[in-house]
Amino acid sequence: MNSTPPASEELTASAPAGVSPDHPGVNELFALLAYGEVAAFYRLTEEARMAPNLRGRINMALMAAAEMQHYEILRDALERRGVDVVPAMTKYAPALENYHRLTTPSTWLEALVKTYIGDALAADFYLEIASALPAEVAEVVRAVLSETEHSQFVVAEVREAVAASDKQRYRLALWSRRLLGEAITQAQYVLADHDELVDLVLSSGEGLTQMTEFFDRLQRTHATRMQELGLA
Amino acid sequence: MNSTPPASEELTASAPAGVSPDHPGVNELFALLAYGEVAAFYRLTEEARMAPNLRGRINMALMAAAEMQHYEILRDALERRGVDVVPAMTKYAPALENYHRLTTPSTWLEALVKTYIGDALAADFYLEIASALPAEVAEVVRAVLSETEHSQFVVAEVREAVAASDKQRYRLALWSRRLLGEAITQAQYVLADHDELVDLVLSSGEGLTQMTEFFDRLQRTHATRMQELGLA
Repeated sequence: MNSTPPASEELTASAPAGVSPDHPGVNELFALLAYGEVAAFYRLTEEARMAPNLRGRINMALMAAAEMQHYEILRDALERRGVDVVPAMTKYAPALENYHRLTTPSTWLEALVKTYIGDALAADFYLEIASALPAEVAEVVRAVLSETEHSQFVVAEVREAVAASDKQRYRLALWSRRLLGEAITQAQYVLADHDELVDLVLSSGEGLTQMTEFFDRLQRTHATRMQELGLA
Repeated sequence: MNSTPPASEELTASAPAGVSPDHPGVNELFALLAYGEVAAFYRLTEEARMAPNLRGRINMALMAAAEMQHYEILRDALERRGVDVVPAMTKYAPALENYHRLTTPSTWLEALVKTYIGDALAADFYLEIASALPAEVAEVVRAVLSETEHSQFVVAEVREAVAASDKQRYRLALWSRRLLGEAITQAQYVLADHDELVDLVLSSGEGLTQMTEFFDRLQRTHATRMQELGLA
């Protein structure tokens, strides 16, 4: 709108040169996120069966419900872009279902850790991408990820369990590292299969350097989460 | 606040004489509704396994998520009244779990009809009760039940199926009547076991007459729903 350098720079502060809101990767990103929300919803409700009591089942149900609120934001954003969410998202089913299949918890504590770490990893992953996106697109991604307080109930329960048992702490620390490993593996599969997404990340800001640093940062924030849970 | 007759009448227009917001039945009603929402959440996610496609699973997940939004309204209302929702609601588990156990659908169409009829019955049931409650209590109940558009996706799918097959229509009409029967049976069990709830209904407005008419009205609105679904 305003072509004088200072104003233009201001306007594009969070919209790096080279990425347009019409980039085909944007629809793909939203579709990937949308499938992620639905997959998380059904996994949470399944893993909630391991809850030892009604309160645990309710907490899992509230988290699952929040995933569907996020789904609705993405569905509406895609609709505004003329894309029907359901056919667009099905291509991301294999990677996300594989992640969940390979990280099926065998205890309630594993389910809790997965919920917390998975939620946090997804948030890290998508916020990293958001910072490289045009402002209007980044806004949708941030709106989706603004609510994370639902997984806070996990912290107290896990900390208490691992304070009482070193064996639990080692087991859950290992489990938590496996979650990170599988998440990175599946993220790389998704990028390998979907050129538009790679192009979206590369054409934004720092490109390849950013990509390497991105996976480094994921590891660092994961370490912080393990400390929060008393696992490191 | 204002004791002159006309103003007072206006203030209590939706708050019949005899029912105080402190009536012990109010907490019981909110607890019953709260358990109903959680039970519906988990049943919907289970019955969604029968969905023939992703779109069906998403519609069920959106409905389930709405139940948890209702639960949060009830939990917050109980908290404001100094009541911890989880211990308060567990006594209603048997009636609601029995209803779901006795009405486990065996096909996707049965699941859809149960979703629609069950949602509508719950709405009828609670709105009837709301009209007999003090205004501030009725407001909570109405807020919980304000969202019903989520079950609208059912109508088109069921109408199409029964238009194509008389056999399906007869089967689903029978199923729908069974749902009503089980709902009334369980409602009567709940009332028989919980004097505070009976007292809440009886001490409001028309008392016993209202009770009889209430079950008559339930049957009439149920007939309307069957027509909407093409079952009558």
